[in-house]
Amino acid sequence: MTRSARVPTVHEYPCRVDTETRWSDNDQYGHLNNAVYYELFDTAINGWIAEQILANPDPDPAQRPMAVVAESACTYFHELSFPLRLTIGFGVSRLGRSSVTYDLVIGKKSGTSRAAGAASTVAARGHWVHVYVDPNTRRPSEIPDNVRRVLASARIEKSDDDTAARAVGTTARIVHTARTTVN
Amino acid sequence: MTRSARVPTVHEYPCRVDTETRWSDNDQYGHLNNAVYYELFDTAINGWIAEQILANPDPDPAQRPMAVVAESACTYFHELSFPLRLTIGFGVSRLGRSSVTYDLVIGKKSGTSRAAGAASTVAARGHWVHVYVDPNTRRPSEIPDNVRRVLASARIEKSDDDTAARAVGTTARIVHTARTTVN
Amino acid sequence: MTRSARVPTVHEYPCRVDTETRWSDNDQYGHLNNAVYYELFDTAINGWIAEQILANPDPDPAQRPMAVVAESACTYFHELSFPLRLTIGFGVSRLGRSSVTYDLVIGKKSGTSRAAGAASTVAARGHWVHVYVDPNTRRPSEIPDNVRRVLASARIEKSDDDTAARAVGTTARIVHTARTTVN
Amino acid sequence: MTRSARVPTVHEYPCRVDTETRWSDNDQYGHLNNAVYYELFDTAINGWIAEQILANPDPDPAQRPMAVVAESACTYFHELSFPLRLTIGFGVSRLGRSSVTYDLVIGKKSGTSRAAGAASTVAARGHWVHVYVDPNTRRPSEIPDNVRRVLASARIEKSDDDTAARAVGTTARIVHTARTTVN
Repeated sequence: MTRSARVPTVHEYPCRVDTETRWSDNDQYGHLNNAVYYELFDTAINGWIAEQILANPDPDPAQRPMAVVAESACTYFHELSFPLRLTIGFGVSRLGRSSVTYDLVIGKKSGTSRAAGAASTVAARGHWVHVYVDPNTRRPSEIPDNVRRVLASARIEKSDDDTAARAVGTTARIVHTARTTVN
Repeated sequence: MTRSARVPTVHEYPCRVDTETRWSDNDQYGHLNNAVYYELFDTAINGWIAEQILANPDPDPAQRPMAVVAESACTYFHELSFPLRLTIGFGVSRLGRSSVTYDLVIGKKSGTSRAAGAASTVAARGHWVHVYVDPNTRRPSEIPDNVRRVLASARIEKSDDDTAARAVGTTARIVHTARTTVN
Repeated sequence: MTRSARVPTVHEYPCRVDTETRWSDNDQYGHLNNAVYYELFDTAINGWIAEQILANPDPDPAQRPMAVVAESACTYFHELSFPLRLTIGFGVSRLGRSSVTYDLVIGKKSGTSRAAGAASTVAARGHWVHVYVDPNTRRPSEIPDNVRRVLASARIEKSDDDTAARAVGTTARIVHTARTTVN
Repeated sequence: MTRSARVPTVHEYPCRVDTETRWSDNDQYGHLNNAVYYELFDTAINGWIAEQILANPDPDPAQRPMAVVAESACTYFHELSFPLRLTIGFGVSRLGRSSVTYDLVIGKKSGTSRAAGAASTVAARGHWVHVYVDPNTRRPSEIPDNVRRVLASARIEKSDDDTAARAVGTTARIVHTARTTVN
């Protein structure tokens, strides 16, 4: 594989959200259960949108589509465990008519300086596809303009080298990388 | 796209486990939260291994490696919700020295006949990589022989056409399929 | 207190529901996390009502109040852990105008015979108060007739002054039992 | 009932911990599922102890008993929902040889001033009993001295009037009963 498998740091993403762990997140191996990462990614994305929309309200509140998960994936590099505080970094790697794709990483909460952040280790990387649907028919519908503006503000640049930008191919490459490293 | 996107039915997998939903699984959209699918996949895999090992016990119980999740993915096709009863079909698509890859599907619990089962709809398809590690060092270790025998019994045939066999490439293809359908 | 602190067996309750555990239910002590018992009680109650109502449908489906939890409690006697299968026994200890109180016990799934069941150990005992509310105002509303008929079918015999006040009595008596063992 | 039903505010408790909600905490009624409150109480208690112990380390780290939940209860007054940030107030209402009882309240995160805090509404009140056990035998064992010092620092004054030491309504009676019986 000629492409490098470097995982971006939390601070290379346009959005960063601090989050916390719960006692019940630790499974019997004493580390965060794998499903918990998806709860945290979901929370980061939905909390961020909710917060941004408040500052950028919907002109027509009645017309409020919902975002359902069409696809998710996570690659786990290092263990995390309660009572750690964590930081999630994420951005939008693809913005379609009714769907949006996120690239996310999660790690221990780091200091506030970019230098400190850059040094902190990414424990897992996620991939997330939300599809906006009509709440009644539950069929895909166009992403509303006010949400689209929020999502567009978090776009990750697409490029050929391995930066956070390359989210669309992420899962496949991560799979490959993980396979070569663990086996 | 020349590759067919047919998702195998639950009954095309060598292992099938019935499972149930919980009231708290439904999120505010009235359907199973996306993270719940991972809890169910995890339960199906670990419960199946525990049950099989009992019938095929470890010659040396002291030497008991643990399996940690290195990678997981899910593509969601249809909503599921409490109080449905579900069936998970799964098999081993790759068996390495220290890691094992599963291909899984989940849908409403169907009748016991293969014909009935074939007709039931797959609601989501998962991809799962377990790495066996030494409980102390948490570094990859060889899959123990008794576990390997269990895993080998659930191998999915590899072939060029799109059957359950094609698990390794699954995520990438599902992503592609999902993208073409939703956007 | 003249009443004995004997905890009823699962088979002494009018309703019994089998349930299963999940891998993620085990916390870092290798046993079911305390919050999981509440998920299981909730599931048993709501699943049972849903099933009973199907056989006894609402004459006016539009008028469908929701039941919210006003109060819950659990006393833990013994550990349970994945991959055990469990049985929950429960009944209605008080049926008011808008609220209903349940008494529940949970233990390992036992054989089907009453004798076998009587021998199985109760691992925890719960107390649960549902209040029916109007879905729009979220204020208490009368329990609908079809639901009331279901609840009435699961009444537990009253003794002494069985009022709402004695919801506490359940917990207190449980506490009494627990006290002798733990402290 | 001659006792007032006033519930103490978060700021009347010796310990206060901020916490956050997750998207998956909301159940299909769009509010925090009842079991989530127990996850949050557990997290507040265990996180606080872990943090305090770090500043007050165990003289003998090998001798580390674990705290298991013997009893829990919650009374729900008002709905909470994601994406709210919350504050938990709690204190130790009883400190025995091997068990400790907590009284807890939870509500929306308020301002930092005591005046602002006093005005915020308590959404639920909990009751929690931890029993310290030997990790190997899982039988009750004495609370270690360094933990006892932490717990003692959070004692709630016992009195006849309605301070934080007293609970309210049903819970109050449960707490009161429990206190008199367990002590």
